[in-house]
Amino acid sequence: MLKVYDFTGSGNGYKTWLLMSQLGLPYQHIERDILKGETRTPEFLKKNPNGRIPTLELEDGTFLFESGAILWYLAEGTSFAPANRLERAETLQWMFFEQYSHEPYIAVARFWKHFFDKLTPQQEAGLPEIMRKGYAALDVMERHLASHTFFVGNRYGLADIALYAYTHVAHEGEFDLSRYPHITTWLARVKARPGHVTIDHKH
Amino acid sequence: MLKVYDFTGSGNGYKTWLLMSQLGLPYQHIERDILKGETRTPEFLKKNPNGRIPTLELEDGTFLFESGAILWYLAEGTSFAPANRLERAETLQWMFFEQYSHEPYIAVARFWKHFFDKLTPQQEAGLPEIMRKGYAALDVMERHLASHTFFVGNRYGLADIALYAYTHVAHEGEFDLSRYPHITTWLARVKARPGHVTIDHKH
Repeated sequence: MLKVYDFTGSGNGYKTWLLMSQLGLPYQHIERDILKGETRTPEFLKKNPNGRIPTLELEDGTFLFESGAILWYLAEGTSFAPANRLERAETLQWMFFEQYSHEPYIAVARFWKHFFDKLTPQQEAGLPEIMRKGYAALDVMERHLASHTFFVGNRYGLADIALYAYTHVAHEGEFDLSRYPHITTWLARVKARPGHVTIDHKH
Repeated sequence: MLKVYDFTGSGNGYKTWLLMSQLGLPYQHIERDILKGETRTPEFLKKNPNGRIPTLELEDGTFLFESGAILWYLAEGTSFAPANRLERAETLQWMFFEQYSHEPYIAVARFWKHFFDKLTPQQEAGLPEIMRKGYAALDVMERHLASHTFFVGNRYGLADIALYAYTHVAHEGEFDLSRYPHITTWLARVKARPGHVTIDHKH
């Protein structure tokens, strides 16, 4: 059986088992507490030298890390990955956008506000810039969704899963999604897909 | 002809035209000065709503952004992209690692030191953390390269191009690569590949 090493509440981990649920793939969910350093132990670094979740263990013991790579591996040949070259590249375009221009701001603001009681002075000082860049990413999404039902080819797929994970909990980082009508209706469309599970799903 | 919108000196742009050179694909190089805001104009935002280089324009006028997505598009069906599913995912694993855990530190330190005369007090305060995280990424690469000739399948490909771009100029961000013998020999192997062009190539 596939094994996914995860930290409950992580949007990056959620992406992988949301897809596995929708694909009907059984998996074993293995918790590693990043707040206690459980992904930086010598044992875990043998699985993922970068010391992060999610990490996927295949049935033959091979490990894959990076949520985007795990999604790609699982979705190949299914309706969640496009069958044409341009749409595959567009899917990756939005997945890289998410990891570079969206997650470092929207997920980080949420992580600080959701998991920490109090921010350090350095975090407090950096927060306005993080919020500004997070809103810039939401602006890009809103503009695209004004003329698209889903991110690529007007079909639900990996790009939607990748961007849904942290966007739908952006309010936990105090982002105001009421400014974004197209994002709001897209979130509802994603949530209504067959096999959808929520980020607080009990495995 | 393919058109690549780029800012000379950018490693992210370099990735795309290094691959195009090695594939023998002719391209038109179009400069956009990010320091002068030339990627945030209304005209440019129609090409790439995220306002960044590189942006690729296909012959039919379609635009693609995100260097990783552009590399994937260009390499599909060539020897630069693996023919098997696991190696494709491993390639993306290293490409996402580069964009999330490597570029934001190694490229940013270089950008600040290479393109700015003087850092702001906020940049100065953030620099030690950026250097620490950049070295952590180099440590992950060194560990992998201790037992691999190239990043995936012991064959030169997209993951090597993605990681070469900013690693080979990491010294411009004052990273000391002499600590990394395996990275150093891998850089030389990449540079020796047929069709290699340097980051200061005149288009």
